[in-house]
Order: sequence, then C-alpha cells, then structure tokens
Amino acid sequence: MKEQLVAICGAKHVLTGTDTDPFATDISGYRTAQPLAVVRPGTTEEVAAVVRLANDLKLPVIPVGGRSGLCGGAVGEAILISLERMTAIRDISADARTAVVEAGVILSDIHDAAEAQNLVFPLTFGAKGSARVGGFLATNAGGSNVLRYGNTRDLVLGIEAVLPTGEIVDLMSGLHKNNSGYDLRHLLIGSEGTLGIITAAVLKLHPKPGAYATAMIGMQRLTDALPLLNEVQRETGGQVEAFEYMPQSYIDDHVALNAAHKPPFDQPYPVNILIEVGALAPRDCTPDDTGEIPIVGHLEEILARYLENEMIDDAVVARNEAQRKDMWSRREAAAEIATARGVRLTNDVAVPLDKIETFLTRADATLQEVDPGATTSVVSHLGDGNVHYTVFPTRADDALKDRIMERVEDIVLDLRGSFSAEHGIGTAKLSSMARRKDPAALMAMRAIKVALDPLNLMNPGKVLPPE
Amino acid sequence: MKEQLVAICGAKHVLTGTDTDPFATDISGYRTAQPLAVVRPGTTEEVAAVVRLANDLKLPVIPVGGRSGLCGGAVGEAILISLERMTAIRDISADARTAVVEAGVILSDIHDAAEAQNLVFPLTFGAKGSARVGGFLATNAGGSNVLRYGNTRDLVLGIEAVLPTGEIVDLMSGLHKNNSGYDLRHLLIGSEGTLGIITAAVLKLHPKPGAYATAMIGMQRLTDALPLLNEVQRETGGQVEAFEYMPQSYIDDHVALNAAHKPPFDQPYPVNILIEVGALAPRDCTPDDTGEIPIVGHLEEILARYLENEMIDDAVVARNEAQRKDMWSRREAAAEIATARGVRLTNDVAVPLDKIETFLTRADATLQEVDPGATTSVVSHLGDGNVHYTVFPTRADDALKDRIMERVEDIVLDLRGSFSAEHGIGTAKLSSMARRKDPAALMAMRAIKVALDPLNLMNPGKVLPPE
Repeated sequence: MKEQLVAICGAKHVLTGTDTDPFATDISGYRTAQPLAVVRPGTTEEVAAVVRLANDLKLPVIPVGGRSGLCGGAVGEAILISLERMTAIRDISADARTAVVEAGVILSDIHDAAEAQNLVFPLTFGAKGSARVGGFLATNAGGSNVLRYGNTRDLVLGIEAVLPTGEIVDLMSGLHKNNSGYDLRHLLIGSEGTLGIITAAVLKLHPKPGAYATAMIGMQRLTDALPLLNEVQRETGGQVEAFEYMPQSYIDDHVALNAAHKPPFDQPYPVNILIEVGALAPRDCTPDDTGEIPIVGHLEEILARYLENEMIDDAVVARNEAQRKDMWSRREAAAEIATARGVRLTNDVAVPLDKIETFLTRADATLQEVDPGATTSVVSHLGDGNVHYTVFPTRADDALKDRIMERVEDIVLDLRGSFSAEHGIGTAKLSSMARRKDPAALMAMRAIKVALDPLNLMNPGKVLPPE
Repeated sequence: MKEQLVAICGAKHVLTGTDTDPFATDISGYRTAQPLAVVRPGTTEEVAAVVRLANDLKLPVIPVGGRSGLCGGAVGEAILISLERMTAIRDISADARTAVVEAGVILSDIHDAAEAQNLVFPLTFGAKGSARVGGFLATNAGGSNVLRYGNTRDLVLGIEAVLPTGEIVDLMSGLHKNNSGYDLRHLLIGSEGTLGIITAAVLKLHPKPGAYATAMIGMQRLTDALPLLNEVQRETGGQVEAFEYMPQSYIDDHVALNAAHKPPFDQPYPVNILIEVGALAPRDCTPDDTGEIPIVGHLEEILARYLENEMIDDAVVARNEAQRKDMWSRREAAAEIATARGVRLTNDVAVPLDKIETFLTRADATLQEVDPGATTSVVSHLGDGNVHYTVFPTRADDALKDRIMERVEDIVLDLRGSFSAEHGIGTAKLSSMARRKDPAALMAMRAIKVALDPLNLMNPGKVLPPE
C-alpha cells in the first residue's frame, strides 16, 4: 500500500507507523485509532487516485482537515487523506463576492483574504485558526454568526468533490440560481466525509460592515435576554451578528484558565451576554464630528434605556478593536475551557429560543438524579437556540455517559429541539442518531450511502449507526 | 385501480376519463399527456397509501400542485396525486418567525397569513396566485426577491414527505441549527417529485419591511444598471429586494396585451428597471413631519444624482401602494406575455451579473444565424443574473427548437453560466441535462434515484435524461 501511495503523492507526503501518531486523535480527544497511513495529496487528481487505489485494495479512507472536529469524525483505522497541502485561494472576486478556495485553506486565512477586499466570510468559531474548508463544509459548521448569515451550507455556492468511487464531480458554480437536478452540493455538505471528499468550494462573501458595535451585558435572568435581542434587531433593522450567552461559571472558568483574562464586570452576574451589531449603511458607520460612530451610539442608547428600566444590570461597549477582540477571545475559549477540565461529554443541542432557560433548569435537575455530583460547563449561541451543555461526570464510565446523554435528549425532544445542532455526528452521537432520528430518514440515508459508496470505504462507521 | 383509489380517498376525490382533462397539461402548454387517474388525498397518510398502492400495482405517480410549472414536470401518463385539498396553514409563529404549512397551500395565501403577523414570506413570482407549497419546493422556485432572501430552499427549515416506497419521513424541524445526518430536506427540494412527495413544510418568515421604496427607471444602456444597483445596495446597507430588467419590447408587448396598462414613461427607453428597496429600521420607515417616508426620499436622492449625471434618463418613484402594485403587475405579466405569442421555447439561464449584456448580444446574433426571422421576448431578474430569453421560432419544429437551445447553451457555458436557473428541468430541459451536466454528477443522481425509487415509479422520466 505504501509504495502505491508514494507513487501517487511522493514519499514526502506518505506517513506510516509512528509518524501517523499526531493523526490518531482530534482536538476533542474523544476517540483514538491508529491510521493505516496518512497521505497528503497536492491536487484533486491525486485525491481521486488515492480513492481509486483504496477501492482496488478495499481499504477505508477518511478525509482529514484541521482535526478540530468535536465528534471524532476524522479519526479511524484507515488511509487518512489530509487536505493540508491544498491551500490555494484560487480567486477572490470583489464584484461577484465569491472566494474560490481549495479544501485545505484555513478559515482565518479566508477571513484575511476577504478583508483585504473589504468583504467578509462570516463563518467564525473558536477553531478558526485550524479548521479547514473541507472540514467545516463536511460538518456544516455553525458558530457565532449563524444568526445573521446562516450555517456553512448557506455560504457555499459550489463545490468540487471526489466521490467514493474516485470520480471527480465538478459543481463549482458561482451563480445564485442554478436548478439543474438534485442538489449534490447540499448532500455532500454535512455528510462528514461519508459520501465523498470535498476538494474545493466557491464561497459566498458578504460586504464587510463599515462599523461594529460590540458589548458585554450583565443581567440576572436569561428570560430578559430575548426581548433585548428582539429590540436591538428591530431598532437596527436586523443587523445583529451575534448574541452569545455565558453564565457566571463560564466567566470564572475562563479567568481560572488564565489569570491575565479579567472578568467583564467588577461584580459577577448570573447572565453575561456578548452582543455584536454589524452596520453596513454609511450613515451608521461614518464617525460624526466628535468621532462617535453612529451605530455604537445607537447601541449605547438602547442599553442605557434597559439599564434605566433595570432590565439589565451593567453593560460595557467596546471602544476600539482591541476591546472588541478581547470580548471575543473570552467566548472563543469555550473548547479550551471544556478540554482543561478533562473527562466530559458534550451535548450540542438546539431548542426554540424561548425554551433555553427551561432546558437548562430541567437538564441540571436530571443530571443530579442520574449522576449526583456531576458538574457542567455551559455556553450558548443564544440567538440560534444552540446550547453547548458540557457535562463532567463523576467517573469515566461510558454507560453512565450514554445514560446522561439519553436523558438530556429526552428533554430536548420534549421541547421540540435537535440533539445535534452544529458539531455533527461523527462517532460521538451514533447512539443518539439510532435513538432519535426519524426511522424513514435513517432508511433513506442508508440507501443513499450504499448507492454512492457500495464498498463502504468512505469514512465508514461515521454518521450512520449500525443497523 | 379506481376502486382502490376510491377506498383510500373517497369517490369524490378520484377522477378518471375525461374528468382528468384539465390535468393533461400545465400552464406552459409544453406537453400533453392523459393521466391514468387524478386523486386528491386529504392527508399525508392518504398520500402514503396511494403511493403504496402504486407500488403494488407498479404504476407511476406524479405529484401535482398549482400546475404553474414551466417545464412539464407535473404532466404524464400516471396516477396524478393532486395536493390541492391539503391547504391547512397549521401554525404561524410570530416569535419563531415560522409558518407550518401543508403542501397544497397557495403561495399568495401564505403571503396574506404572514402579513397579518407583520411578517413576510418573501418568495414571489407571477404565478403566486396558483403555485402551491409542494410545487414551489419541488422545483426550488426562484422569482424576484432571491437577491435579498435567496431561493425557495433558503426559506425552508423543515419538510415532511412521502418517499417513493410509501414511507413518511418527518423532518419538520423549525430550528436554525440541526446537523443530524444527510440533509434530505435539500435533496428533496428541487428534485421535482422524482424522489418523493413533499406533503408539508416549515417555512422561514422574515420581518415585514416597515416601508418600501419602489421605482421604475428608464435608461439607454444595460451596462449602466449594475453600478446603480451597487450604489443603492451600498447606501441602504443591502436592502434592495428586487432589481428587474425589462427591455422596450417587453413594455410594448405588455401594453399590446391590455391597453389599460400604460407604459411607465412618456417616451420609450431601451432599458427599463424596476427597483424595490425594503427598509426595516424605524428611522427609515417612520414618516417625517411632511409625511415623507425617509427610505423613499433616500432612493429619490440617489436617482436624482444619477439623473443629473445623465446615467439614467428618467425615473418614477411609487407614491403609494397602488402605484407600487401597478409597477409589479407589469413585471409579473411575463408568463402571460410569452404565452400570448404562441409557439416558443424558454431559455431560463443565469450568467454572472456583468455578462448579461454580452449574453443578450451574442444570443440575438446566434438566433438569427440558426433561424433567421425568429423573434424573442426578454425579461430578467437582473440582480441575480437570471435571464428569461424566450424565443419564438419561425416554425413549430422540435429539431429546430433543440438546435436553438443548444446554441444558446454554448454561449451560457462560455460565460460560465447555468443552463437552468430557476424553472427546473421537468421534461423540457432533458436534452440540456444530457449535454451539459457534469457526467459524474449525473451518475451520482442516477444512483440516488435508483436507491430511493427502485421501481422508478416516482415522476419517472423527469429531471434525469435517459442513459
């Protein structure tokens, strides 16, 4: 096998034995498995050649990006195809507002390239410095700006992919209207590498807001947060980019992790909200004679009104980019905070916006029933109804972890939510899929998997639970 | 067969013989075929029972909505399942901004129901008074507001559908984040009833703009239109809802069709643009002391600047809702105008925005080469790069029509466009699919079709060209 891989990609780009160790797990540490080999193809044709070889040898393949996934999707005993060398940003068109990128491009590099054209690629999350195009498309990553711009799939106009049989499919359209058969783009996005390997994409860019108004808000009750979000949306005409919730325990954990980080307020509050408004119209963004940016003043006015009515307790508005970055760095440390505390299980759930407090109250009570003494770390994309309810059980016991997860799912389903909001399934959520996914939908997914990957070689054992 | 259908849906809702005549064709008149029967189930369970019966009898089925499709997708020798009785709007949630609707609800009824909650369902096109949910989802319809709100698929959070085997799949999520396996919703949307029958949907609603600024603009050159669009987008922070192009010939055809319709200007202009801005922020929408609506004044200012610089020749801004509706009725008469002129072929293409004039110039020249004396009717969702280039050939000759279409496709592909932008494939574009679709994509689509519909009973012969 190694010889044949070397013939395709060159000796420098084929790793075997202990050289593959760094690929045996991902950031989540959720799962460990020694790869059969790691190859680093430099072109789509090389990816296709590796897949055809795997077909000949009947060996499984797994596409690998930045290994920042949280569900073990890119780990396994297989030929790992790392896209890390395919890092070309082939084109950025300011007129068409599109970026044509290869699968190995790192998210923050797209941010920089777009910004240079006064545009943004709005997808963002903590792992932006390591996550790569192929990975965040394969998992349909979410993050903090979904509220305004949608999930990854809403930001993709076209893709190129290698199918499980080694065929290359070219759907690299940059058009906004293209109805020509089944939407294979949306089928591959979110399929976690089980239906093919995404090798390139045409991404949608948006105009860069001329000014941001960003604030931290301290308050007593989560139920008061939603009316505030709705009011800022109404006043700004729907320009809220992010609305993030951090409980006091999250703030404490963050400070504990790094003493240089200060808490946002002099005194602690149960509910801490990070809000960001991105303004586009010139009259919202152009500083007035006093240097004040209108949108910042507008947000301050709204918050002053809420302070006066005692609906919030405190608020700090970022006065410059450094203060804004500081507010965001706290929110983006979520994975770091959870990782630092060791054995855990992550519940990545979504519920209707007005049900988040209910969910948290019920989940906490249930947890103490199932595993008295277990602790949690909570952070939420509140504007999307997406809660990361991370549990630290009292002992490392897989049966206990699964029992906790099942009970949390019960609450989520009772509230008409989703057991898997933005991280995907991988292997971490296979039992949830088996328990909770609509049976006819599972049946259809299995039929599609068999149709496109008859030998079951493409990231086998992920997404679809065993029958 | 009839007896069994009656057992499922009741005698009143099963049509056979000449009673099925109205279903033998659709608005396009593109194709005629006598149905085996027409059934009108009242529930999803009845739809599933009819599909299971069709499986038993090995008879094809075709889902039918408002029959306003333009590609013959809902016509054929099959059991036609009309969703016209499933017209319940089950729920409109102002808080969640969602509408839960059955497949037979007419688009304009959703408009009205949303408006009553001060919300909008932004999808709109000429056939809004007849098109039904199941149909506009199955075809992923486009229309005039895609520029701001996206295609149909971007407005759908969840669906319920009957699969070709008669299983009901329930994906009626109202959540904005839900990553739990392959996105069957997006696979079914745009599959034109070949992979299942959509029976209900959760639609995304948007806040209703507090004020619209709508104008007709007369100008000499199409190339001057794009900078104007960009400028209004920049000034308003991206609030343009529609940017539609009508050449002088379209205006003439419209007046000829109905003398009560007046042309938009006292003198004719080669290029006529309908622009609409929808403002959300209160200070754009609240009339000032003189009764002037700020967003209307803002659009007038921009247009005055363009008039002064002689980049446009004339402009009329709607002063009230009646004037606005009048401007829209002209644009929405497109299908009526094309139909009135008889034998035709519709090219529904998309090209990059800055290539529309090039496309039109080259297409006109090519047409006169292939069929000297042929005439055209052109109308365009200019802001999406979507052109409806309808050709009236000199004679009703299918080979000639196909030759014209192939030559037009050559130009489209040369400009990196799409041969099928928003109407879909049906049977009308099967030869285009065979000629132009990526071969690996076609192969994958065929594999999916066989996997989900092994007996090939679900709207057979549509979308996928014969091998």
